[in-house]
Order: sequence, then structure tokens, then C-alpha cells
Amino acid sequence: MKVGFIGLGSMGAPMAQNILKAGHEIIVFNRTGSRAEPLREAGARIAEEPSEAATGVDLLVTMVSDDLAVEAVLLGEIWPLGSLPRGAVHVSMSTISPELSRHLSELHAAAGQGYVAAPVFGRPEMAEAGKLWIVAAGPPEHVRRCAPVFEAVGQGVLEVGEDVAAANVVKVAGNFLLASAIEAMGEAFAMVRKHGIDPIHFLDIFNGHVLRSPVYQAYGGMIARGEYEPAGFKLAHGLKDTRLVLEAADEVSVPMPMASLIRDHYVSAVARGWSDIDWAALGRIAAANAGLGD
Amino acid sequence: MKVGFIGLGSMGAPMAQNILKAGHEIIVFNRTGSRAEPLREAGARIAEEPSEAATGVDLLVTMVSDDLAVEAVLLGEIWPLGSLPRGAVHVSMSTISPELSRHLSELHAAAGQGYVAAPVFGRPEMAEAGKLWIVAAGPPEHVRRCAPVFEAVGQGVLEVGEDVAAANVVKVAGNFLLASAIEAMGEAFAMVRKHGIDPIHFLDIFNGHVLRSPVYQAYGGMIARGEYEPAGFKLAHGLKDTRLVLEAADEVSVPMPMASLIRDHYVSAVARGWSDIDWAALGRIAAANAGLGD
Amino acid sequence: MKVGFIGLGSMGAPMAQNILKAGHEIIVFNRTGSRAEPLREAGARIAEEPSEAATGVDLLVTMVSDDLAVEAVLLGEIWPLGSLPRGAVHVSMSTISPELSRHLSELHAAAGQGYVAAPVFGRPEMAEAGKLWIVAAGPPEHVRRCAPVFEAVGQGVLEVGEDVAAANVVKVAGNFLLASAIEAMGEAFAMVRKHGIDPIHFLDIFNGHVLRSPVYQAYGGMIARGEYEPAGFKLAHGLKDTRLVLEAADEVSVPMPMASLIRDHYVSAVARGWSDIDWAALGRIAAANAGLGD
Amino acid sequence: MKVGFIGLGSMGAPMAQNILKAGHEIIVFNRTGSRAEPLREAGARIAEEPSEAATGVDLLVTMVSDDLAVEAVLLGEIWPLGSLPRGAVHVSMSTISPELSRHLSELHAAAGQGYVAAPVFGRPEMAEAGKLWIVAAGPPEHVRRCAPVFEAVGQGVLEVGEDVAAANVVKVAGNFLLASAIEAMGEAFAMVRKHGIDPIHFLDIFNGHVLRSPVYQAYGGMIARGEYEPAGFKLAHGLKDTRLVLEAADEVSVPMPMASLIRDHYVSAVARGWSDIDWAALGRIAAANAGLGD
Repeated sequence: MKVGFIGLGSMGAPMAQNILKAGHEIIVFNRTGSRAEPLREAGARIAEEPSEAATGVDLLVTMVSDDLAVEAVLLGEIWPLGSLPRGAVHVSMSTISPELSRHLSELHAAAGQGYVAAPVFGRPEMAEAGKLWIVAAGPPEHVRRCAPVFEAVGQGVLEVGEDVAAANVVKVAGNFLLASAIEAMGEAFAMVRKHGIDPIHFLDIFNGHVLRSPVYQAYGGMIARGEYEPAGFKLAHGLKDTRLVLEAADEVSVPMPMASLIRDHYVSAVARGWSDIDWAALGRIAAANAGLGD
Repeated sequence: MKVGFIGLGSMGAPMAQNILKAGHEIIVFNRTGSRAEPLREAGARIAEEPSEAATGVDLLVTMVSDDLAVEAVLLGEIWPLGSLPRGAVHVSMSTISPELSRHLSELHAAAGQGYVAAPVFGRPEMAEAGKLWIVAAGPPEHVRRCAPVFEAVGQGVLEVGEDVAAANVVKVAGNFLLASAIEAMGEAFAMVRKHGIDPIHFLDIFNGHVLRSPVYQAYGGMIARGEYEPAGFKLAHGLKDTRLVLEAADEVSVPMPMASLIRDHYVSAVARGWSDIDWAALGRIAAANAGLGD
Repeated sequence: MKVGFIGLGSMGAPMAQNILKAGHEIIVFNRTGSRAEPLREAGARIAEEPSEAATGVDLLVTMVSDDLAVEAVLLGEIWPLGSLPRGAVHVSMSTISPELSRHLSELHAAAGQGYVAAPVFGRPEMAEAGKLWIVAAGPPEHVRRCAPVFEAVGQGVLEVGEDVAAANVVKVAGNFLLASAIEAMGEAFAMVRKHGIDPIHFLDIFNGHVLRSPVYQAYGGMIARGEYEPAGFKLAHGLKDTRLVLEAADEVSVPMPMASLIRDHYVSAVARGWSDIDWAALGRIAAANAGLGD
Repeated sequence: MKVGFIGLGSMGAPMAQNILKAGHEIIVFNRTGSRAEPLREAGARIAEEPSEAATGVDLLVTMVSDDLAVEAVLLGEIWPLGSLPRGAVHVSMSTISPELSRHLSELHAAAGQGYVAAPVFGRPEMAEAGKLWIVAAGPPEHVRRCAPVFEAVGQGVLEVGEDVAAANVVKVAGNFLLASAIEAMGEAFAMVRKHGIDPIHFLDIFNGHVLRSPVYQAYGGMIARGEYEPAGFKLAHGLKDTRLVLEAADEVSVPMPMASLIRDHYVSAVARGWSDIDWAALGRIAAANAGLGD
């Protein structure tokens, strides 16, 4: 299978590697060219322009940071969508808005191409291990066409129907649950800490026996130790995803006060210059608000 | 071992039964006498006054609803603390404030009695199965004295040191994490539902593969189905515990905006007459705020 | 002076009438044509297309509901900006985003036209009386050109410099202060009411002697009486403006938790079908959350 | 008239001076004795104990910082209530909880004494000028007895009925409206400032022409200039009053999310060591959260 791949960030790069390892032919594009080097060495072709990565492929995978990047890459002046062959499928694995997903779906349909929304759950180490969870939506025949790539990068596919927006809704709702868990731990840990209790001990007690979630264990450890670097998922992206969930909620008139609260904390973190540390740094905001330095 | 037991609510009654089954002699007291009947039939003695349940016992267990109930029962006119033998231990398993716990500890110490704070995690069905998790704090020799009762009612004891207040801090912080998870699911489910996605499907996808917490699964199911009755843990108690975590946080100058938000939603639920349904009904508030009837 | 005027809503219609009364020649456009009738009778010319209202005028005034309306009207297929004579000035009196204002400023400059941002404070009755307050920003020579129109519709002009966005920032920040006052009264009134105190009496005491603001008096009266119809300013527009202030704040990384809270309440009001009542209906949300029916 | 006066803080001291100037005989008590010196020089008698200030007076005025201080002073071991003559009236002008006010009312009634709740609006400079606004509640004959003192310290009395708690509810609700205005300005000013607009200019525009409230002008000036010292009203007291309004609201099941938000910000300010600066320092929190240093 011939795969185009756009976006070699901390998630995209290992995904592209895994597609290559699975025996597919791959042509990759990244705005910052140097990030493509390890892939070149591993046998990938390097595109100079986004449109080049779309030319003549069976499947075009995009894994970029946000709506703007998708728009810049796909709807730019040198229009890659025009380069994608009729009958080929574009699978958007980025976390983008349900609205943009629907818009892309219509553009591709008009051009005789397929479109599948397939955002993923998992951090970079899971991307490296090919263990992502993929939430996929779109016409079944197009989703089926993505199977070889999904197998290469993930441990399973969770289908949510034909409406492509549904996959993006599930993704942003899921990220919101993660951010809520992070925020809640940040507040709880600041409180127990000022009462003289080691947050790691609290986490072991409570998550070890009650919640029993590996996600709480992982993020809880980061917050309890105050270790937010290197970022597995950057705080600026956490803010972006929180904006997405609020927009998706606003679209259907659902207030999400907890998401609003989290958004405000992320905005404050960005104002303090913390955009590039891990999004678990909601815990650092909670500590700062409690008068606890780092 | 001779055990006094005060408080036969939905948690206390099965705990007392399990203590009895474990072969201990037990004398129980409950404000509403009729709730003691099943225990009488099972072989327990029934006290007419709190003080009677304290007289001549090795261990006095209290499992009542809140600070006020503890104060009413223990610091009332017919002072049961005076009836408790010197050298006996009072183990408070209720969810009460760290402050009251410390106060009781001092009163007991002055009277030559022991005091252990040992709140529990678990819902009524876990109490029935003797599978509670016990968070215990107090002087080691007193905690040790509680071992036979802890074995009868729980599946494990998590010790948090000699400062009795620590156990109560851990308990209210833990309940706050639970309420946060409930609130977050309530908001997320309202949003996905208005986007046409079945919240049960969303929960299966996200908790089944990412969070993987049995607590999310249980509460998530209740919220997704809108089933808040019968209450495993009443909403009025959820409000009480949220007040406790805010007080414990205020005491050490820690803002907990997520706890504030949850408190406000519980207050609104009480104003709507929902005090007696399950505290998972934060999900019902989230739905109502999104214009979704029950 | 020859004036084009686009947007004949509850604010725009009386403003256009006042411009006419001041002796200027005016050509008006409104999407819903019937709203233009009273103006036709008063001597205005009616445009069939937005572009017609821009053709050959000295000054083009736009007073429409939001960014989308501005974009639809001005950047639509029949591009009215192209019809506006070189050297003419477009004065945007709508409440739009600082971002769009800057964008329009650049488009007009490129076309050799002037652009002034001049949003207004005041409700429909003030528009009728020609007593609006105008916040104006833009190049001084262009602001000066708007003087005859400003005199016709307002009681004063408050200049905020050459950066056109500044006027829009001031406007959305001001509307946020109004919404905050409304929300605060909504919560306070629900509380005093459930304590048996008449909110009108409370308002008289507190605003009559402490705050002494005519705005609190007017909105406070509406909330205390629960009278939200007819709308002076629709709730849907209140939500729009709260979104604008949050966007303007996000742009410069400022968290505004009170604005987030207000946004959530407006979203909930829209979900309940209250889009068309007055934005003071934050007080109705506060009452509903307190279990007080209307 | 013979007046006892307890509590010589920044409000109490000038009030006592004004009572003295009005020609009444006065005996004052303050925990920190040195604060009584200027009054001694002006002709007041100094009490060594609270009870001494109650002995033989017609009217006992208390103006202390909070519920705890009232309880310490009035319900202490040397019980001043017992020293107050039968038929004398205690007028509590402190900002205390409606609950404590009702409790005091009952204690006094049982002792054949009168009780009036009469909290005041106004800052220290208004206390000095004898220009406070007094919100009074209680049996009319007792309120009437306070008239000479009210005339000495205030510019007007606003009666709210016989239920003493009503005066305290009005007071805490009023302080909540003030704190809301402060918080809203803090957020708005941080936002306009980062957009390059001088907050003083914004305040002049918006309050000068729209809100037109002297309170916004005064607090707005402090926030815009970042001047929070010396404190007219200490932040720690602002936190106390916000707790009071939340308790009063909780008592009648009214959620007040804006009050919760303000409470959290005050708690954070206390955690940063800002207890003793002016409560307008919500503006300092808003600035800090926006990455703006002082």
C-alpha cells in the first residue's frame, strides 16, 4: 500500500515509522524538514510540499497539531487535496474540531475522494509501541480501506458510525475527561500536601484500591513529583483541545463548567510561559494557587 | 471481643452484621430503633442510649452521617464518652472533618481512652461483602487494637500515620476525586448525547480502553442510563462531603475551584428536591443545564 | 452628507431615523426588508443589496448583530466594499471582535477607504433618544469624518486611539462588566428571596445608597420582578458578546473565570429556549438553580 | 445616654469617637488596649474586660471582626451578657452570620435584654465622617432605642423588619455585590491592559458614562493603579464575608457560583500572604493569573 503522511510531531513520527515497518511504501511531509531525517534513513521518501505527499497515494494520513495546521496544509495555496487521486482516502488522525471534520468530509466527497476521521488516544510511548487506540468514523468502505494503517499504529479500532464528526466528538470528550482527572488530582494533591500527607502515598491508597486507573497512576505520579518535562503532550495542545470541547459543546448548547475552569487554568499557564511543558501542569497551577512553589 | 456500634445506616448495618458474623459480641445503637431489629434477630444486643453502647466494651465503633451526628451522639447530654472504659478504643469510621477528628482524639486522650480515625471507601454492596477499604490513622497501639473489626468489615487497611486527621483528609480528598469524575462524566455525556452519540458507547470506548477504572464504569453506567435510585450514597451526603473537603482545604489555604463547582451543583440539586437520590445525580444537573430532561 | 446604513435591528432602526432627522441623505439596507418600511416612509432610500447602500456614499454605517453578519454583508459575493467610493469611510458600530475589526481596517486601507470602529453603549430607548455613548477608534482624520453621524445618534464620543481594535476591546469589556453585574444580582436576589427579603427592597437599600448605579437599578428591577420580555438586548446576543470577550482575552492569554461562568449560564439559557428574552435572564437561571420557578 | 462600645478597629474607633462627639457618655473595650488611647484622651472611659463595657449601660454596641470575635467577647468566660442591665439593648454592628444574629437575639430575649442587628456599609473614611449607611433589623422599640447612636455614626438607617437575621443577610449580600464588582473589574482590567489600553482610561469611559457608580470608581482606581495598601478593608475580612454569604446561601439551598469563584481567589490570596492588603486585591490575583506582575 502506498501511504502519504503529513505531520511528524511526537505522535506522527513514530506512527510513520510503524507504517514503514509494517511494509508499506510511505512518503512523508513535515513543515520542519529536519524531523523527516530519521524516516528518510529508515526508507521513507520525503516530500517537499504537502501536495507531493498526496500525489499518487492510496491513503493520505494527516497527524498535525490543530485545525489551523490542517487548514494550512490541506487547504493551502498549493492544494494537496487536488493532488490526491480520485478514489484515494484521506484519514485525519489529528485532534480537530467536529466542524472541520465535517467540512473536509464534504470537500473530499465532492472531489471523488474518501474521508475518514480517526483521532487516537495514547501518548508518544504508545505511538512508538504501535499501541494507540483509534476512534474511527466514516463510510464503512472507507474505514475498511484504512485497516492496514490502523493495524500498524494501533492496538484496536473503536468505530462510532458514519458521521465523521462523531469520532472527533468522542476524542475531545475523552481528552476532557483526562484533563478533568488531572485538574482534580492537582487540587486534591495541593490540599493533602498542605495537610502534611505525601501525595504519592495518597495516590497509592486511593488509586491503588478505589479508582484503579492506569491513567490516574501515570498523571498522578507526574503531578505528585512536579515533573512536567519532557512533555508527552504539550500544555498548549491541552488548551487547544479544551477549546475544541467547549466549541463542540457550544454548538449543541451544552454548558461544561468544568471544561471552562480547565480552559481558564490552561490560559493562565500559557500566560506564565508554560506552553511547552506537559498538560499535566494543571497541577502546577493548582500548587501555585495554593501558595506552593514548584 | 466486646464491640459497641453506633449508627445503623446503609453502611453501618451491614458492617455491624459482619462484626457479629466474625464471632464478636456486639451491642448496637441507632436513633431510629427499627433499623436495629435485623441485628437483634442475628444475636446483637440493642442499646437504648448511645452511652449504653459504650459501657463495658473493648472497642466502640461509630458510623454515622456527619459531624453533627457525631457531636449529638458522643458529646450529648448523656455523655457516652464517659461510659467508655479507660483503655478502650473509639474507632470513628464516619466521614467527618479532620478538625472534629482531632478534637475527639484530644477528648479521648484526656479520658484515658484511645481514638482511631478509620473512614472507609466503598458502597453498601461492598460493606455487605466485607470488602471495604479502611483508611486508618492514630497511635499504632490503638490502630492494632482495631484489627479484628477491620478484618471483619474490610479487605484491607491503609495506614496514614499517627495524626488522626490525616485519615479524614485522605477520605474527603478521595471522595472529591470521585465527585470530580462524576461531574466530568455528567458534562461529557450531555455533550456527546446532544451530538447523537450514545453515552454508554462513549463510556465503553473511553473507559474500556483508556481510563480503565471500575469506578468510572459503575458511575458512568448510572449517569448514562439516568438511574439514580435507589441511592447507594445519597446526594445530601455528597454535598456534606464536598463541604468537608472545602473546609479542610480552607483550613490550609488551598483553593479548590472544582470542588466549589461541585458544591454549587449539589446545592442546586438539593434545592430541586434531589437530596435522597444517588450523588451521581450531578449527571442529572448537567443534563438539566443542557436542556435535557430526565 | 450622504450616508449608507446597513442593519435595521432594534438599535439600528432608531439610529438610522436619527441620522435622517439630522438632515442627512440616507440609503438603508436590511436583510428582512419589511423592517425598512418605516424608514422609507420617513424619507430614506431603500437598497436592494448591501452593495447598493455603499455606492456613492460619504459614510457607510454598519450596525448588525455579529461577526458572521458583518462578514456576510461586507465580504459576501456581491462585495459591497468594492462599491464604497475611494476616500469614503466605513464606520462599524456593531459589537464585533477586535480581530475582525483589525481585518476590516486592513481591507479598507488596501482599497483606499477609511475604517473606524465605533461600537456603542446604550439600549434601544437610548438609541431612540439619540443618547448613545460611542466608543471610537481609528485614524483621527477618519474619526473626524464620522462626527455628523455621531452627533445624530449619540450624546458623546469616547476616543480610544488609532488602533481600531481598542474600541471593540473596550466595548466587549464593558458588556462583560454589565453581564457580571447582572449575574451577581441574579445570585444575590435568589439568596435574599429565599431568606424572605424582597429583592426590590434589597436593591433599593444597596443600590440606592452604596452602588448608586442607574444600570444596577434598571437591570436589578427586571431581575427582581422576573420581567425579561420584551428584550431590550437579546440573551442570544449576550452569549455572543460573552464569547467575544473570552476570545479577546484568550488572544492575549488572560483567563476570565467570571466570563466563563456567565458564558456557561447563557449557554444553558439557550438550551432552555430562552434566546430571545432579555440578557438579564441570567437572573432566571440563578433562580432556577435555586429551585425558584419563574 | 450611656453607651458601651466593644471593638476599636479601623471602623469601630471612628464610630466610638463620633458617639462621644455627639455628647454621649461612653465606655470602650478593645482586646489590644493601646488602640483605646486616643479615645481615653477624648474623654471615653476604658474598660478592662468586655463585661465592664456592658455594666450599667443603656446601649451596648459591638463592632468586631467576625463571628468568632463576637463569640469570644460576648459568650466568653466572664460573660458580658450577664452584666448588661435588663432592658438595655445590644446593637451588633459587626458583619456576622444571620445564624449567630438569631442566636444572640434569643439569648438576649431570655435575659430580658433587647437585641438589634445593625451592620453598616461604608469604609473607614465614611466612618470618620459619620456617613455610614446602617441596615437595621429587630423589634421596632429596640431599633428606636438605637436612634441616637445611629445618628452619631451614620447618614441614614435602612430598616429591614423584625427578623434580626434579615439585616445580616442584606449586609453579606451587599458585600458580595461589591466583591463581584471588584472581581469583574480585576478580570476586565487585566484583559484591556494586555490589549494595550490603560485601565484608568477604560474605567473613565465605562463607569463615567454607563455604570456611573462611585463604588466602581473608587475600587476601579485602586485596581487600575495596583494600590492595595493601606487596606480600607482587609482581604482576610473579604474572605470571611464571602464565606458568610456562601453559608447564608447554603442554609437556604441557593448556589452562588460567583461567590464560590471569589472565595477561591481570596483563599489563593491568603495562601500568597496577602491577608492584610485591601480586599480589592482580587485585582492582583486576576493580574497574576494573566501573567502580569504587580
